[in-house]
Amino acid sequence: MVRVVESNSVSGSSDVQLSLDSIRESLIRQEDTIVFSLIERAKFPLNKPSFEESRCLDSGNSSSLTEFFVREMETIQAKVGRYDNPEENPFFLDNIPHSVFPSHKYPQVLHPKASSVNINKRLWDIYFKELLPFFVKPGDHGNYASTAACDLACLQAISRRIHYGKFVAEVKFRDAPHDYEPAIRSKDTEALMKLLTFEKVEEMVKKRVEKKAETFGQEVKCVSGDESENYKVDPSLVSRIYGEWLIPLTKDVEVEYLLRRLD
Amino acid sequence: MVRVVESNSVSGSSDVQLSLDSIRESLIRQEDTIVFSLIERAKFPLNKPSFEESRCLDSGNSSSLTEFFVREMETIQAKVGRYDNPEENPFFLDNIPHSVFPSHKYPQVLHPKASSVNINKRLWDIYFKELLPFFVKPGDHGNYASTAACDLACLQAISRRIHYGKFVAEVKFRDAPHDYEPAIRSKDTEALMKLLTFEKVEEMVKKRVEKKAETFGQEVKCVSGDESENYKVDPSLVSRIYGEWLIPLTKDVEVEYLLRRLD
Repeated sequence: MVRVVESNSVSGSSDVQLSLDSIRESLIRQEDTIVFSLIERAKFPLNKPSFEESRCLDSGNSSSLTEFFVREMETIQAKVGRYDNPEENPFFLDNIPHSVFPSHKYPQVLHPKASSVNINKRLWDIYFKELLPFFVKPGDHGNYASTAACDLACLQAISRRIHYGKFVAEVKFRDAPHDYEPAIRSKDTEALMKLLTFEKVEEMVKKRVEKKAETFGQEVKCVSGDESENYKVDPSLVSRIYGEWLIPLTKDVEVEYLLRRLD
Repeated sequence: MVRVVESNSVSGSSDVQLSLDSIRESLIRQEDTIVFSLIERAKFPLNKPSFEESRCLDSGNSSSLTEFFVREMETIQAKVGRYDNPEENPFFLDNIPHSVFPSHKYPQVLHPKASSVNINKRLWDIYFKELLPFFVKPGDHGNYASTAACDLACLQAISRRIHYGKFVAEVKFRDAPHDYEPAIRSKDTEALMKLLTFEKVEEMVKKRVEKKAETFGQEVKCVSGDESENYKVDPSLVSRIYGEWLIPLTKDVEVEYLLRRLD
């Protein structure tokens, strides 16, 4: 066991044991953030033109408004040290600008190859092509600035969850290196996926996020018992978002990380 | 009655009647956003150095990390059209950069002087000096990039709520111009404040946001009835945040707006 960032406070400086329990606690807390961000995004319709290619009047370059926004935002966030944190992975930055403020030293508990595991390009495509149309209503109401801010919040929350797979894989590997080493050496992706899959746990996660969407997405009235069943995001969809995308993508990150674990 | 942005979807293009009901509906939905943002900020301790003056390594200028971050963020957000929306008011931009994408035409229902009503400087001071220490735990865990992002979310959600007072004042004025005109002409702030104050409504809002903080800030478990009473933000504090700051500041905006209403 090594000491690592306190996972519940999502990378603070106070260090605690790197354990499956602390990682699970962080993932559970991250569910709240993800459900909040989905509820907030669902205020707006799909607003497709915001993420379709458009000509930027400034540079003349073609980019979607949302891509322009996320690229610029990531640059600013890098300058305040966001990507010094091994939990954060950029969507677009190839060369991450240095922090312009004194930076925080995060404990390095992952294998040095960890930073090369980044599936955000895949997440970006999945998010706009599959996930977003799955949980927001169709339509275009023109308020793209607010929409892009909500999309950024969703993308970053989901990306953090998925790439947390690196920490999950690290602790699982350390707990039973002999179970993993043969499959890593033979690059047996299928065997690794099998070692990393616990269907009962996945079912529990899906059930819990459905309940969170019910709880956080209800209309709260002053009088108890007056709650309507009008959820801001359909809770069964949130469960499916986890089952069909978030959990599988997290496991893909775990496998990718493990394949580099003995380099 | 005039047509105005759909207040429930927070400034979309589909227009509905500007009525006290539609404005109230928007304010109620904004409560959820504010409570979510407070819960998210409360994950982290105060992290005072993030908003205290620090030397920016890049420019050599003194600024807090959070101020640097918010200034830069607002510039990017302006470039995607955030401040074309009369509901949004910047903290730092004196000259708002034009949108670099084709911009959305928001219906202009407020008096042209509305854009000069901006109490964000006061909100900034109150937020960091009073409000933040009031609801987050003390301490410094060093992860300032995430903290600043959460502070921005809180500040923008609260600023939107407070400056929504312009819409509230506009509709109240239109419903009963003769009640307001004498007080406006004599600049009688006290009389205006009295006309705008409905204690019963304020009590109901405070009660409702407390219930929202209980609902959204609880730990949701898989098994029903297993919920703990460990709230992520003390619900009574959220009620007091509304009672001591958000509601009075909204009314200050209403008064400031009305004082310019006959210009």
